[in-house]
Formats: sequence, structure tokens, C-alpha cells
Amino acid sequence: MRLAIIGGLAAGPAAAAEAKRRAPDAEVVLFEQGPHISVGTCEIPYLLGGHLEPETTLQVLTPEAMERTRGVTVHVRHRVTALDPRRSRLTVEALDYGSTREEAFDRFILATGARARRLGVEGEDAAGVFTVRDLVDTHAIQRWLDTQPVRHVVIVGGGYIGLEMAEAMRSRGLRASILDPNGRVLGSTVACEASDLMDRAVAEAGVPVRAERATEILAEDDGRVRAVRTDRGELIGCQMVIVSVGVEPRTELAAAAGLRLGDMGGVAVDDQMHTSARSVWACGDVVQIPRAPDGRRVLWPLATMARRTARVAARNAAGSASTRSADRFRPFAGAVGVRAFGVEVGSVGLSLSRALDAGFDAVATDVRHVSRTRAFPEAAPIDVRLVSERGSGRILGGQLVGREGAALRANVLVPLVIGGGTVRDLAEDFDLIYNPPLGPAVDPLKVAASQAMRDAG
Amino acid sequence: MRLAIIGGLAAGPAAAAEAKRRAPDAEVVLFEQGPHISVGTCEIPYLLGGHLEPETTLQVLTPEAMERTRGVTVHVRHRVTALDPRRSRLTVEALDYGSTREEAFDRFILATGARARRLGVEGEDAAGVFTVRDLVDTHAIQRWLDTQPVRHVVIVGGGYIGLEMAEAMRSRGLRASILDPNGRVLGSTVACEASDLMDRAVAEAGVPVRAERATEILAEDDGRVRAVRTDRGELIGCQMVIVSVGVEPRTELAAAAGLRLGDMGGVAVDDQMHTSARSVWACGDVVQIPRAPDGRRVLWPLATMARRTARVAARNAAGSASTRSADRFRPFAGAVGVRAFGVEVGSVGLSLSRALDAGFDAVATDVRHVSRTRAFPEAAPIDVRLVSERGSGRILGGQLVGREGAALRANVLVPLVIGGGTVRDLAEDFDLIYNPPLGPAVDPLKVAASQAMRDAG
Repeated sequence: MRLAIIGGLAAGPAAAAEAKRRAPDAEVVLFEQGPHISVGTCEIPYLLGGHLEPETTLQVLTPEAMERTRGVTVHVRHRVTALDPRRSRLTVEALDYGSTREEAFDRFILATGARARRLGVEGEDAAGVFTVRDLVDTHAIQRWLDTQPVRHVVIVGGGYIGLEMAEAMRSRGLRASILDPNGRVLGSTVACEASDLMDRAVAEAGVPVRAERATEILAEDDGRVRAVRTDRGELIGCQMVIVSVGVEPRTELAAAAGLRLGDMGGVAVDDQMHTSARSVWACGDVVQIPRAPDGRRVLWPLATMARRTARVAARNAAGSASTRSADRFRPFAGAVGVRAFGVEVGSVGLSLSRALDAGFDAVATDVRHVSRTRAFPEAAPIDVRLVSERGSGRILGGQLVGREGAALRANVLVPLVIGGGTVRDLAEDFDLIYNPPLGPAVDPLKVAASQAMRDAG
Repeated sequence: MRLAIIGGLAAGPAAAAEAKRRAPDAEVVLFEQGPHISVGTCEIPYLLGGHLEPETTLQVLTPEAMERTRGVTVHVRHRVTALDPRRSRLTVEALDYGSTREEAFDRFILATGARARRLGVEGEDAAGVFTVRDLVDTHAIQRWLDTQPVRHVVIVGGGYIGLEMAEAMRSRGLRASILDPNGRVLGSTVACEASDLMDRAVAEAGVPVRAERATEILAEDDGRVRAVRTDRGELIGCQMVIVSVGVEPRTELAAAAGLRLGDMGGVAVDDQMHTSARSVWACGDVVQIPRAPDGRRVLWPLATMARRTARVAARNAAGSASTRSADRFRPFAGAVGVRAFGVEVGSVGLSLSRALDAGFDAVATDVRHVSRTRAFPEAAPIDVRLVSERGSGRILGGQLVGREGAALRANVLVPLVIGGGTVRDLAEDFDLIYNPPLGPAVDPLKVAASQAMRDAG
């Protein structure tokens, strides 16, 4: 059995390794258009901020190590330009040689991932304008910072990557400004709706967050970025721009192969990560996957889901028809965390706006509690928002924000969001850990849940 | 309706306040033999260690505040010496006046709590030998430390209170030694079976843990403690002794009243916290309550359970027959946490030894992972033990130990232990938060659960 894996950043290598575990005799070949595979992309801001050990490369596995330790054949700098499921063939271009060939496989796993969204404004190709997606970006940013007289970095987009990059730039002693139409950070992926603790920390760190959009990027005569123009007509001088306005799935190959796409533009798959073509499975940032609590299939381009979808896709692609049905993807909780400027955020499930969009009769309960009893000098506020369904009290989501003990507390909500737990379960039946240096006498989540019993009752 | 609450340390005041909320017209009278009510006993070691704000008293509510804000009549320094459920009367001794009277009530809530166990060795009454249970103890310890030339403190018992007191004494610049027959700390209540991280931290803090028992306490001619003799014949010189060898329920009143006791010596109650007498409910450290995952009724003398049992007892005692059945105590998860000497422990559910004692075909899976990816200089080991049932993979308990991100992670196990979740759920279907400063790419709990799928499969 020959299995082709298309894409090598995160989901691809995970799928390749899992396929070899399931079917050691299969020939597994991985194609990646870039020079690296298996990259720890989540750590890029920490590498650029100088927070990691100096020898860190973010390459979890080199192509050589992947071949040697996992038995997977790896072709980097090879772009798959066409996939023909009916003829079970793909066309691949060897970028370093300019040659193109056709290869036959029995099965395919599509892991083409997502690309950073562009602004679509004039001047975006100026030197010194970067997205943050892979090691090629990372090395280019590093080189720019090392060789150019950078003093001020404009970050377009206040999502979690924008926030992490702002912290990285401040750690290097640079000025940083964030442009975000919301006028605040963490508006969407990591819901931070009901707390201003992170915004205050960003402001205290000297990073202005401007409620403006970039409308043009201006360059010096030699092509180097010199300023960003905004929709308020402001001209913000800078020597570097980071564009972090989200990602979009790379579906060109899938679309040309005739695979069905979902309503959000990702590749449509069933619970076995099987696409609409008999011999093709897909995984990672390119697929739409069902979320708890409503089963809606959405794009959720995070490392945790890359690994999980890869595992399911590989087991089914590498398995026989009889073993396949055992490996199904079940709706995910949507757990996300961020820590920056000393404040951490944990978010699980639906924000209020997403819950309302999904048609739930949802109610938000907001509570400000503390990270320890107030008798401790270290006691810091924790803001909790619980989102629950009116009447049933079912927990749809929740967010915690604070300086200590906030993010990981949110993980308790994962089994509840997935399993249909209620605010009553959390308020009355769950004993969470209490010890004075670890938290207040009644856990912030339980305080919020008790309040939510009244709000949602 | 007249309701008497007997005992005022933690469960009693919580029950009194909840009863007044449920039945505002009821007359609620609380009797406490000591001078204080509503004490934050868990924070005593932090007060003694100088870790709290200087004005801290640990009195959550004074008797006056309880009367004024909750509408509860409070009698401190009043000892209930007899309870006659048939005649609906109790006998109470006013300690400051030496007078005794009988009072009639419709219903009773017994919250007599637990007392610190004594060693039962010669010399235990020497001046400078203390238990750590209430504010009277606390003030006595404080006075001893302030007035005596204390250099070395011997702590008998290496449970979580002994450990916290050792840290408190070190924070004051005193020498401290722990005697524990296990030769290590955290042997029982907080299960720390599979990790030596806490033991190493204790050793590095200069606190020897001696695998010895105290057999005699020796005093100076003036009655002040001068040494502890051990079962190895050693004589350990000291100027203060802390005895922290657990607690036992105060059941004298219940037993004399003819209430049924459980097999562990606590008061037997049903899921409504109703005792064997029609007009008597009970709550707090004195009752046996059902634990998850096996429903066995055990003593679990922790603040979290004091509040929860108090709420159930008060709602049922204060409610009418028709509303009562709604408020039932459901099996608890047994979540416990400790942080000392920079290491934290979180434990939920059954340890391996308790699971085996309970008759489960239990298997323990031990994994050493990290608190963040190794690229971070802050990365520190986290030891995880998952206890699961062979075959079914049902999670029976788990413990995490580490310098950061360990204790609160264990809370994720609470819904699983209570709800019958499996290692497969945790390994494959739960997406836990991943962000580089908050944890490694695969959460330590998930790594352990994946390993447990192989161990328990």
C-alpha cells in the first residue's frame, strides 16, 4: 500500500508517523513545498522574543530524522500541483530542479494547512512587511531585526498571534503598536469579551492598541517599509510591519481535484476525516471539524486539532475497511489559551456572541473573583464569564482572565462542554481543589456557576 | 420553626446562613464552644509563616457580623452537652457563667467537626506542644514563637498540614524537622505516591524527614518542651513541637443522642445529610459522605466538603417535606491540592492503594513530562500518575506534581472521576489548552492518558 501525505508543517508529519504505526508495511511518502517539516509554529513569537534556549530551532523533526526514525519517505521543496483521485495519481514539482512528475498512490492524506491572510492593501509587498506562519517567515523576521535599524513595529491584528508578537517585540526593547478595528486585543479566536485585564496589561506595557485599519503601506525609495496609513488618515512611522489577521485554508489542490468544500471554505470531511473522494482523507487546518456543543463544522486552525485530526485521518487511511469505523473524530471543546504581558486567558467552548449566532438561548454570567484569598499579597483579580443555555443551564462555554491561575482553570470546562454538563453540576456537585496558595476558598469557576444558576434558571 | 446549629467553625456557620436564606422566618441559633466562629482554618500555616497581610485575622465572620448580616443568633463559649431528639431538646452549658440550661428546638444540625488526633505519648502536655486546628491553637503558637527562644521545631506527621507548617517555620528562619513513619511527606490524604519532586524540594529547603515515630516528649523542669524521643531511640532537641497526625470526628454528642455512626466512626447520614433521628441533620467533618467513583461513605474532613454538606443539610433541615428531596449530596471527586517549597500537588479521586483497597482492578500509569516545552528555560518536570480500571479504562483518580502548572491541571479529572470518564476520552477526545508559556504541545494529562490506554487496555 502506497500512501501519499501532502503537506508537512504539523498535521502531515503527525499523520505520516501514525500511518506507519498502524500499517508498518505501507510505503508512506510525505511531500512538503517548503524546506522544513514538523515545525513548532506556536513557539515562533517566543523564539523571536528571545525567551527560548539559544539553540532552539523549532524543528521538532528534520526530514532526515523523520525518514530514519519513522520510516517515512520525505520530499521537501516538492509542491504537489495536481491530485487526480480517480486515476490515483498526483503531479509533483521538484522546486529545486524545475522538474515535474506523476506518481501513483493507493491513498492520499491532504494536509495542505492554511496560509496567513493578507491585508490586500497597496504597498503590502514592501520589504519589512511579514506574516508569522512558518520558519521561512521566522528567519526572514529575525534577519530583518538583526540587520535593519528597527525601532517601531506596527502589528496589524490584535488576535493571539498579534498579541504574542507585540510582547516579543517589547522583550527586544522595541516600540510596538497594534492596529485592530475592535480597539482591543483578543476579539475573536480567544474570546476575552468580558474582561479588560489583558487590555490594561497591554496598555501598561506601553503598547497602544489603535481602533484603526491599515489602508496602505508606504515604503522608502529602496523598498523598505517606512509607514502605515490608516482609515483615519493617520500615518504611523515604522521600520517593520507584522500582519496577523488570521489564516485561510489552502484548498486550491482540493478544489481542483473536485473534493467537496464546506460552508466556511475548508475541505469537507466526515467523522473519519474522509473527503468526498474514496481514496482521499484530509486533516489539519484545511478541514472543517465539528465543535461541541452544537456539532457545527468549523475551521479551527490550532495545533491541538492538527494532531487529533491527523491521528483520525491516518488510522482510517492506513487501516482496513473493518478497523476504520473505530476511529472517529468527536466534537471538540475549543480550548484555547494565551499568556502575554503577565496576564493569561483560558477559553473553552462558545463565546456569548458565537452561542447566540449558533441559535442558542444563551446567557452570559460575569464574575470578578480572586486568584487567592485577599489575605495574600499576591491575590489578583480573575474575571470569569460563563456562557450557558437559559432553562437547561447547560454550559456552552467559558473564559477566565487573570494574572495567576486563570488559563488552566478553564480546562475543567472541557468535559462539561463536550458532555453536556450544567452550571448546577459545576456549582454544587464538583469539588475543585482548594488550598490557600492555589486559589480562594470557593473556586472562581464555582462562584460563576452559582451566579449562573440564578441567571439561567 | 426553631433550628439549632451545633458547632461553628466552618460547616455550622455555612449551614446557618443557608438555612436563613431558605427559611427567612425560621429562628436559627448557633452554639459554639470556642470563642470564634467561621474561621479560615486552611490559612493558619500561612498566617504563622508571615505570608498574609498583617491585619489578617482568619475570622471570616465575627459572631456580631453573623447576627447582623445573616440574622442568626450566635452563642459562643456555649457547649452543647446533650441532645435529646425524641424530646426535641438540647442541654447547653454557658462556659463563661458555669450555668446549664435546656432549650427546645424543632430541628437540629450537628456540625461538631473533628478534633486533632493526639499522639498518646508521655509528655504530650508539655508547654510548647501544639496541634493546628483553630484560632485558639493559632494564637497559642504565635505567642510561643513570640516569647520563647525557639530555634528548632519538630513536626510530627508529614501530611499536608505538617508540610505547610514546616514551610511556615522555615519562612520564619527556624529549623524544622518532620517525623513521619513513611520517611516522606504527603503519604495519605494528598496522594503523592509516584513522585519524589516534593520530597526533593523539602530536602533542598533544609527540612529533614525522619522515618521515625515520636515515643515520648521530654520537658525542662519548668514544663517547657526540650526534646522528642523517637522509636529509634534518638533524642531530638527542640523548643516547640507541632503534632499533625490527622483528625477524628467529634461524635460524643451524636453517640450519646443515639444517632447511628458509620464504619469509619463518623455520623451516618443519607444523601440529604439526614441522620438516623427524624429531627437531626449533620454536616462537616463529623459525617461520612459518599465518594466517587465507588460510592463508599468515608470521612473527608476538608473545607470544600464542609461547605457542600452544610448547604445540603441546611436546605433539607430548613425546607418543607415537599422541597427536600431536591437537594441531595452526590458523590464527591476528592480534589485536594497543596503547594509548599515551590512545588505543587493536585490529586483527584483514588490513589492506587485506595483503588486496590476498594476492590478495583486498578492500574497506575506514571509519566514524567514537562510544564512547558523544553525550549523554555522555565520548563520544569511534571509527574503524572493516572489510576484507571483495567479493561474499561475508567479513570479512578490521578495526581500531578511539579513546580508550575501541576495542581490546577488535576481539576480536569473531577468531571471524569464523577462522571465515569475513561482514559480514552482524555487521550483522544478532550482538547486541553495549549499555548507555549502555559504548557507543552501535548498536555501532561493527555500524555499519561495515552500511555494508560496501553496499560489498561
